[in-house]
Amino acid sequence: MKVSVRNKIPGTIKEIKKGEVVAEIIVKSGDIEVISVITKDAAEELGLKVGDKVTALIKSTSVMIQK
Amino acid sequence: MKVSVRNKIPGTIKEIKKGEVVAEIIVKSGDIEVISVITKDAAEELGLKVGDKVTALIKSTSVMIQK
Amino acid sequence: MKVSVRNKIPGTIKEIKKGEVVAEIIVKSGDIEVISVITKDAAEELGLKVGDKVTALIKSTSVMIQK
Amino acid sequence: MKVSVRNKIPGTIKEIKKGEVVAEIIVKSGDIEVISVITKDAAEELGLKVGDKVTALIKSTSVMIQK
Amino acid sequence: MKVSVRNKIPGTIKEIKKGEVVAEIIVKSGDIEVISVITKDAAEELGLKVGDKVTALIKSTSVMIQK
Amino acid sequence: MKVSVRNKIPGTIKEIKKGEVVAEIIVKSGDIEVISVITKDAAEELGLKVGDKVTALIKSTSVMIQK
Repeated sequence: MKVSVRNKIPGTIKEIKKGEVVAEIIVKSGDIEVISVITKDAAEELGLKVGDKVTALIKSTSVMIQK
Repeated sequence: MKVSVRNKIPGTIKEIKKGEVVAEIIVKSGDIEVISVITKDAAEELGLKVGDKVTALIKSTSVMIQK
Repeated sequence: MKVSVRNKIPGTIKEIKKGEVVAEIIVKSGDIEVISVITKDAAEELGLKVGDKVTALIKSTSVMIQK
Repeated sequence: MKVSVRNKIPGTIKEIKKGEVVAEIIVKSGDIEVISVITKDAAEELGLKVGDKVTALIKSTSVMIQK
Repeated sequence: MKVSVRNKIPGTIKEIKKGEVVAEIIVKSGDIEVISVITKDAAEELGLKVGDKVTALIKSTSVMIQK
Repeated sequence: MKVSVRNKIPGTIKEIKKGEVVAEIIVKSGDIEVISVITKDAAEELGLKVGDKVTALIKSTSVMIQK
């Protein structure tokens, strides 16, 4: 299955912080860190844990540019 | 000035494609490409052009995780 | 591969409208239609065409409630 | 009043989970479930409760396609 | 009908720019301008035209803070 | 540094509510209030507190229109 999302940043989960509804996932990818907020249930359904190899996905319309 | 957006990916503009309303900006950042869709007017106000050093900004709530 | 996006609506592509930068994809799913705007390049990379079986994916933080 | 959002999925609230800042609303709509994350205050201002008839609203630019 | 979106900015349409797929709507609201990108079809379904009294709606999770 | 985000609403922080993962920031701007949900860490990195002069930033593709 392929997804229309074209921003795909591979990395390793460095940290997970769970609240009651949402969870913050910090992914280490080379020199950068990508921070994601997803629902806690989504994090648990994927069985996410520190050290997992994952890919951060970002829709192009969500990306802003700073110059 | 600092922005609450914590995902900041530095890179160089590789390609710009302008439509009537929106524009697609492709940013080369190390091994990855980050693709952004912003308004054409925003691209012109920033004077974006190929070769520019820029930073792609992404709000954490826009980032999904694939495992 | 699993994605953290929990809103998955299966359907069939009813219509595709391509602009220079973005494309509108209308997906028929039972009684409802789901309308997506993705980049034209994404639509072409996936080889989307009318009649295709697809799944519309929506991050929970993008969903609003009306009562 | 009409809203520019064209994705409207009618259903019934199946579950509400409230955190301190945000709340997760699960809406049953035919065979599918639509999961929304809104602010807790928004959920309380609308007086949302299990069994309510509601409509999930999703902007087209938030919808991705998987094939 | 009430919507869970809590950011509501009333104003008057100052300008509309239509592309093939999306449209840019500029709303004058007191001293500020609010710029929206919606689908062209949505703009046409609402019959939007310059001078219309409208309300710009923004989900809280889409709002960033600069200090 | 300039950002491609064109919706910039200046105001003063009226209220901050922190959860474990995200925080709600209410900004008073003239007659309106703008409500933002960002990560708690972002709020703390910016050192946000009630009374701060800030600017709410909103990407055009996140803005909907009601008529």
